[in-house]
Amino acid sequence: MKKIILIGAGNVAHHLGLSLFGAGHQIIQVISKTQNSAKGLAEKLNTDFGTDITNIKRADFVLIAINDDTIASVAAQIKNMPFAHTSGSVSIENAGVFYPLQTFSKNIFLNMKEVPFCISAGDKGFENTLLEVAKSISNNVYQIDENHRKTLHLAAVFACNFSNQMYCVAEDLLKKSDLDFEMLKPLITETANKIKNLSPSNAQTGPAKRNDLETIKKQINLLEDDDLKAIYNLITAQILKQK
Amino acid sequence: MKKIILIGAGNVAHHLGLSLFGAGHQIIQVISKTQNSAKGLAEKLNTDFGTDITNIKRADFVLIAINDDTIASVAAQIKNMPFAHTSGSVSIENAGVFYPLQTFSKNIFLNMKEVPFCISAGDKGFENTLLEVAKSISNNVYQIDENHRKTLHLAAVFACNFSNQMYCVAEDLLKKSDLDFEMLKPLITETANKIKNLSPSNAQTGPAKRNDLETIKKQINLLEDDDLKAIYNLITAQILKQK
Repeated sequence: MKKIILIGAGNVAHHLGLSLFGAGHQIIQVISKTQNSAKGLAEKLNTDFGTDITNIKRADFVLIAINDDTIASVAAQIKNMPFAHTSGSVSIENAGVFYPLQTFSKNIFLNMKEVPFCISAGDKGFENTLLEVAKSISNNVYQIDENHRKTLHLAAVFACNFSNQMYCVAEDLLKKSDLDFEMLKPLITETANKIKNLSPSNAQTGPAKRNDLETIKKQINLLEDDDLKAIYNLITAQILKQK
Repeated sequence: MKKIILIGAGNVAHHLGLSLFGAGHQIIQVISKTQNSAKGLAEKLNTDFGTDITNIKRADFVLIAINDDTIASVAAQIKNMPFAHTSGSVSIENAGVFYPLQTFSKNIFLNMKEVPFCISAGDKGFENTLLEVAKSISNNVYQIDENHRKTLHLAAVFACNFSNQMYCVAEDLLKKSDLDFEMLKPLITETANKIKNLSPSNAQTGPAKRNDLETIKKQINLLEDDDLKAIYNLITAQILKQK
């Protein structure tokens, strides 16, 4: 059981805080720049909160779960305690990494036991602490070096954020024609399910995979937005190339 | 119970043929340009097969489940029988439409009862036949006009084929670094699961959503392929715009 200070109160901090608390660790303080967010999460974790990092308590380590671009400036203010961040892409000397390879939304429950955690730290003792803490909440814990972690994060952006953006485009197209996004949900579920047993390149279907060039032309003409046309062209060219 | 001739023996023909057969319809002939494919599917449907459309039998209707680009030339050879095709984008005068809004791979089982079917035909009697046949295999049957069907198909290409291509990119990136695609599967599953209860625009996470501009820059630098850089830039710009 470790004593942990949590910096951040967004989606990642929320999910990790609750999982760590549930696994028996003590979150002894939540610090967030937004008072209400800090308070909201601290109440769920039965602990103190604050907005000022200079009033930080003492703990076994500090877990920084905030936007990538602000991690370095926050980390620079932590003295005499080991700290780790949850980012896939940030590199800071002396910082441990506690990166969950998952997409977290505040009110969507998920099974943390299945979430892959990518762990590393320069200090082997601290790395072991982070590995042990990760294993207390997940069955899927990896020691991953910096370059591999960055590749995993990049791949995750394509597989998760960009595929979700394709759902957004689809939803917008349907809305403009008064069609219900519900109609696409079985397709989206099946698309994700198929790759559990098939390589995505073998799972591919659709006009580009079938080389239906007339249909591709007609679909590009249906699109009104130039950026969408460009996205359609680029991704279609990739699928055609793979055949 | 209808007598149906099936033209095509690919993924869509396979799944529809087996479902229709299972629901009690009689597939009285399978015609495919490839003898082996026709034979393989016909054996499963306990029926005759052929490769020559001029030797077509008589049935209640013909179901054409082949590549979009070849539907018109095949349809032109069908005389004195109603026919329907399974394409989301093709328009042929006098053809009915029996379009399943789903991604089919030959050896991946799926629950046809949940598949949305988009049905239409110029002749109301034939349209009713198609609606009735669709309802015998699915609980999700819609009468959809041509323009709405084309929009649905375009949206499906983004939501299914293009998101699957994002999985392909991710798999390639991992392969080049000797990382296992298995690690991304919980993320892909969760990404698709989240939009069951959340609009995709509200489900978005990641560097662009968080406005982590430094991370975005670093990720673009990590990509070696110019087309991938262009795809990354375009989709990221879309997510940034939505904030």
